[in-house]
Amino acid sequence: MHDLGLRVDVDAIGNMIATWDCGNGSPVMTGSHIDTVRTGGRYDGNYGVLAGLEVIEALMTANLEPARPLSVAVFTNEEGARFQPDMLGSLVYVGGLALEEALDTKAIDGPRLADELERIGYRGVAPVPGPAPHAFVELHIEQGPLLEAEGFTIGAVDGVQGISWQELTITGQSNHAGTTPMRLRHDPSYVAAAIGVFLRQLAVDMGGDQVCTVGKIDLTPNLINVVPARAVMTVDVRNTDEGLLRLAEARLARFIDEVADREGVTVESRRLARFEPVVFDSRVVDLVTDVALGHGHTVKRMPSGAGHDAQMLARVCPAAMIFVPSHRGVSHNPAEHTDDRDLVAGANVLLDTMWTLAHVDFDKETA
Amino acid sequence: MHDLGLRVDVDAIGNMIATWDCGNGSPVMTGSHIDTVRTGGRYDGNYGVLAGLEVIEALMTANLEPARPLSVAVFTNEEGARFQPDMLGSLVYVGGLALEEALDTKAIDGPRLADELERIGYRGVAPVPGPAPHAFVELHIEQGPLLEAEGFTIGAVDGVQGISWQELTITGQSNHAGTTPMRLRHDPSYVAAAIGVFLRQLAVDMGGDQVCTVGKIDLTPNLINVVPARAVMTVDVRNTDEGLLRLAEARLARFIDEVADREGVTVESRRLARFEPVVFDSRVVDLVTDVALGHGHTVKRMPSGAGHDAQMLARVCPAAMIFVPSHRGVSHNPAEHTDDRDLVAGANVLLDTMWTLAHVDFDKETA
Repeated sequence: MHDLGLRVDVDAIGNMIATWDCGNGSPVMTGSHIDTVRTGGRYDGNYGVLAGLEVIEALMTANLEPARPLSVAVFTNEEGARFQPDMLGSLVYVGGLALEEALDTKAIDGPRLADELERIGYRGVAPVPGPAPHAFVELHIEQGPLLEAEGFTIGAVDGVQGISWQELTITGQSNHAGTTPMRLRHDPSYVAAAIGVFLRQLAVDMGGDQVCTVGKIDLTPNLINVVPARAVMTVDVRNTDEGLLRLAEARLARFIDEVADREGVTVESRRLARFEPVVFDSRVVDLVTDVALGHGHTVKRMPSGAGHDAQMLARVCPAAMIFVPSHRGVSHNPAEHTDDRDLVAGANVLLDTMWTLAHVDFDKETA
Repeated sequence: MHDLGLRVDVDAIGNMIATWDCGNGSPVMTGSHIDTVRTGGRYDGNYGVLAGLEVIEALMTANLEPARPLSVAVFTNEEGARFQPDMLGSLVYVGGLALEEALDTKAIDGPRLADELERIGYRGVAPVPGPAPHAFVELHIEQGPLLEAEGFTIGAVDGVQGISWQELTITGQSNHAGTTPMRLRHDPSYVAAAIGVFLRQLAVDMGGDQVCTVGKIDLTPNLINVVPARAVMTVDVRNTDEGLLRLAEARLARFIDEVADREGVTVESRRLARFEPVVFDSRVVDLVTDVALGHGHTVKRMPSGAGHDAQMLARVCPAAMIFVPSHRGVSHNPAEHTDDRDLVAGANVLLDTMWTLAHVDFDKETA
C-alpha cells in the first residue's frame, strides 16, 4: 500500500483502507480480509486484497487515472476463528455493530479484542462507521466445487447465503459406561450424535442450497468408559432464502426439544452469529457478468455459500462479488488451490469492473 | 497395612499385597484398586481395599484367627484411565499379560509405565505372575442403579460383562462449511454421529444387558465453519454373553463399512481392550448369597456391567464379588454415594465370606 503511494487509514476496529486519491467523489472500493482459519489455505481473503492492489498498480503503470478514487480495504476478523461474530470488521464499518460492543468481544482464548488490537498496533483512529463507498466489489476464491465441476472460469455472485450459528450445551448425567442400562441413561454424547444425524437428514430433505455442519464437539470428561456429563457442539446452518433458513432453524429447534425430552437432558442454545441472506445489487452483478463475457470467459451467476465482507458493504452501497474456481472445492485447508490462469482472469475482471464503476452513476443511469 | 502388622509385598507391576500370615496353605484373598478415573468418586475401588483391611482388623480385635492366611490386594491401573488396557495389574498378576509388555505400556500423556512405577517408588520385587490364592472375593460398589432401584442391599455377582473397546479414526475431507454441497461432503463428524446413533439403536434392539457408549470424540480441526478432516472416537460395547458381544461387534463393523462407503471416508479401528465375559465360581456366589441372607439382607444375583480385578483372579482360583448399592447408579462421578449402612453391610458380608472360605475346601466338598 505504501509502495503504491496510497493513503492508508486504520480505523478504530483495525480495518485498513488504502486509497488512491484521484478524480472526485466517493471511492470505488474493493477488498477482502487477510485473517484465516487455523487450518486455512493461502488464497482465502488474501487474493482479493492483493488483486485490488494489483488493479491499482496496473492502472498507475498504464497512466490511466479513474474519475473516482479507488480504495482497497482489509477488514478485521472476517473468519471469526478467534472472535465472534465473523465479518466483524466490515460489520462495524457499515454501522451494523457498535464499536464499543465489538471492542469488548472476548477471544476464544480469553483476551478482549480492544487489547489485542492495541497489542498488535492496529487500534487505529479513523472513525467507524466509515464513509460509504460509491460501490463495492470483492474478488474471492469460490471455496466450493461448482465452478470447476461445471466448467466456469468466473462466478458473478448475486447473493450470499444466510448464516445461522449456534452453540449447543447438552447437559446430562455422567455415569459408568458398563453399569448404566440404556434405558436409564441421560447421555449428551448420544444427543449430540442424534442432532448431527438429524441435521444431515434435514439438509438432504430440504435440498436446494441448504447446508448444515457440525464442525466442533467437546465432550466432558471425554473418557472411553464414562457416559459424558456434557457435550458442547456447534451448528452451522445456511440457506440463500431467509424463509427456508428460518424453517431449518425451527425444525432443528423442535428436534432438539424432542430428543432432549426423550433422553432426559437439558440443551442450552447460544447464538454465535445470525445473518440474513443478502441479495447483491443486480446492476453490479450484471456488470461483472458483462465484463467477464467481454473477456471471453464462461460466467455462472451464483450465490455464495460462505459469508463475505461484501455482504456487509451491500448495506451501504451497490455491491457484488467475483468468484474464481477452487480446485476440488477445497478451502479452509492448506490444500486450497486456484490455477494462476484463473487468478489472473479474476483480477482482470476486477480491474474492468472497478474502472467501469468509477465512470458510471447508477442513480443517473436508472433515472 | 503396616499398622495391622501385615506383610506387604509390592510386585514387579506395582500391585500391593498385604498378608496376614496365619493358619496354613494359600491365602483367601480380597482386594480391589485405589486408582480412579479423572472425574471419579470416593468409593470406586477404595471401598473394597479398606473393607478388606477392616475385616482383618475386626478378626484380630476379636482374637479370631482363620485357618488360612488372609490377604488384601491393591491392583495397579484397574481403571485404564492413563494406561491401557484397564485391569492391567490383576491381568499381569494372573499371567494374562507378560510383565515386559505391561511395563512398556505408554500413558496417554507419554511416559512408560515402567518409568512411572520407578518414579513413584512402586516398581517392586515380588515376582509376577503371583501365587494363586485359595479363593478371591472382591467387595465393590455396584456403580449402577439396579440394587437401589429394586430395593436390594447386597448383590451376589455371578459374572462380569465382556468388554470390547475400540478407537475409530475417521478420515474425510476438510472443507468450507458454507460452500460444500451436502452431496459432495466426506464428513467425519457426520459419520461419528451416525455411528453414535447406530450404537444406541443396536443396544436397544439387542436388549438384555447390552450396552454401548461413545465417551470420547475429538474432531480436527474442531472449528464451527469447517467440515472436519478427522474424527477420533471411542466405542465401548459390553455384554454378559460372548456370542451376543461378537454379534454386536459384527453388526457395528458392518455398519461402519456401509456408512464409510456411503460418505466416502476411511475408518481405521484400533482395539484398545477386549475381554470375554466371565462366569464366577457358583460355589463362591452361593456362599455370598447364603452369608448375606444369613445377615437378614435382601440379595440379588446379578452380573457386573463394569470390569473388575476379580474377573482376572477368576482365571486362577474360585472367585466372586459382593456389590452394595450406588445411589442413583451414579459412578465415575464425584457425586458417587453409598449409604454408610450399606457400606457396613457389605463389609460384614465380606468378613463372613472370607472366614468361611478360609475353612472350606471346595475340592473336598464337591468330591
